[in-house]
Amino acid sequence: MQVFIAGLGLIGGSFALALRDHELADEITGSELNEERAAEARSLGLCDRIVDFDEGVRTADLIVLATPVNTLPLMAVKALNLCREGAVVMDMGSTKGELCEVIAMHRRRGRFVAAHPMWGTEYSGPKAAVHGAFTGRNVVLCDTEQSDSDAVAIVERIFRTLDTPLLYMNAEEHDLHTAYVSHISHITSFALANTVLEKEREERHIFDLAGGGFESTVRLAKSAPSTWVPILLGNKYNVLDVLREHIHQLQLLRRMIERDDAEGLRESIQRANSIQRIIH
Amino acid sequence: MQVFIAGLGLIGGSFALALRDHELADEITGSELNEERAAEARSLGLCDRIVDFDEGVRTADLIVLATPVNTLPLMAVKALNLCREGAVVMDMGSTKGELCEVIAMHRRRGRFVAAHPMWGTEYSGPKAAVHGAFTGRNVVLCDTEQSDSDAVAIVERIFRTLDTPLLYMNAEEHDLHTAYVSHISHITSFALANTVLEKEREERHIFDLAGGGFESTVRLAKSAPSTWVPILLGNKYNVLDVLREHIHQLQLLRRMIERDDAEGLRESIQRANSIQRIIH
Repeated sequence: MQVFIAGLGLIGGSFALALRDHELADEITGSELNEERAAEARSLGLCDRIVDFDEGVRTADLIVLATPVNTLPLMAVKALNLCREGAVVMDMGSTKGELCEVIAMHRRRGRFVAAHPMWGTEYSGPKAAVHGAFTGRNVVLCDTEQSDSDAVAIVERIFRTLDTPLLYMNAEEHDLHTAYVSHISHITSFALANTVLEKEREERHIFDLAGGGFESTVRLAKSAPSTWVPILLGNKYNVLDVLREHIHQLQLLRRMIERDDAEGLRESIQRANSIQRIIH
Repeated sequence: MQVFIAGLGLIGGSFALALRDHELADEITGSELNEERAAEARSLGLCDRIVDFDEGVRTADLIVLATPVNTLPLMAVKALNLCREGAVVMDMGSTKGELCEVIAMHRRRGRFVAAHPMWGTEYSGPKAAVHGAFTGRNVVLCDTEQSDSDAVAIVERIFRTLDTPLLYMNAEEHDLHTAYVSHISHITSFALANTVLEKEREERHIFDLAGGGFESTVRLAKSAPSTWVPILLGNKYNVLDVLREHIHQLQLLRRMIERDDAEGLRESIQRANSIQRIIH
């Protein structure tokens, strides 16, 4: 199978490594707008050749779009326009609503499979790509009833080989649930980092005292704006909805602390503790 | 050295294991109000004998207070009242202001050393105790100029043997900085867990989609109310101050998302990214 990957960063690069490790690709070509990153991707073995987007799409059996989510709708249309008969176009983005809407009436809509592997780290770029990234992590496939069954089967076969459980939902549900579970965590983490940087002028103390749980809550704050600004704006209404609730929950805790309401705090923390039933 | 530890949970129990692993104690006695936990601590080898508080204090060279922070001020006074000549009383609590204020005029104030090891996990109780807990983590000693130098030296020797760097600050500074770096992270995490439990009625989806960064930000939400209600109320004014700033930071992000202000979001996330200079 000839594979072309647009965007050889954290996600696209890790997917390239996974394809290689499982001998799923005969050749991998890739595109990267930034020349330095293209050279990096090449030297890290994330692709066999750097090609331009049009050439990559025209010559591949599988086209993988792994660029920031705001670029995906237009890129998906172009890929569907140019790809050969029988090729499959797949994305790996974190928001699906606009993308699926834009391609809905494309004559070749059936060749597109919308995929979102529930994996990521706070790092980005070709150097952030790692082996074994997706194994054991869920992959969401969206609106598969609008894709040709042979196209879906090809994508399913790849992810089954990578040992990733598959989930199916429509694009709307996907964007709702990822806002609740993934996107809000990033917002919280960005805000927490800014809070501490704002209040704690003595950076030395942040470093010295960070053992108290700070690293884990602030880890995601290292995530790149080029990835996250498009996600937060692309999933705006769901993100705002859950962000309002989050601010409300913080205000509830604030009021309880102000009033020395130990019983209220105890109940609220106990409710929060119940998350361990779900996340171990 | 005869050691008595009041409270053989996560912190006291892990400290007992560290003392044993480094052969720093001839005998460790311990007290636990809850009988089941006392039996657990005993069977896990966290102490040689369970004794009552008064007996433990009277017979020890080193008395370690490792119970929730709201119990520490009174317990510190009782321990200083009862301890033998030359014994050292030490606490391991996360807030120091009230504690240091309460014991300030005690005739034996010099025998007390206020310590806070910057280590913890989201688990609690004797079963949560682990080997090697404090190694490499900073330990803050507070108001040491009010402790006898031989008492400070004994505590310093123990922590140096455990290979923990020592920091010195006054109780007020300690409570300010821990609010910024540790306490706010817990509040954020509790609020995030409650947000997601509130919005996402389908628990299955939380579980399925949690790969997107949720676990790390919500890990601390598993922490026990018996530990954290006293910390949040005991450090009320600092906690409220940083919590107000945190809510403000979230509102700034909310407004940028509402206005599709990509440039503002990019700048704000870039600012948050700078936390990686401090936390690696």
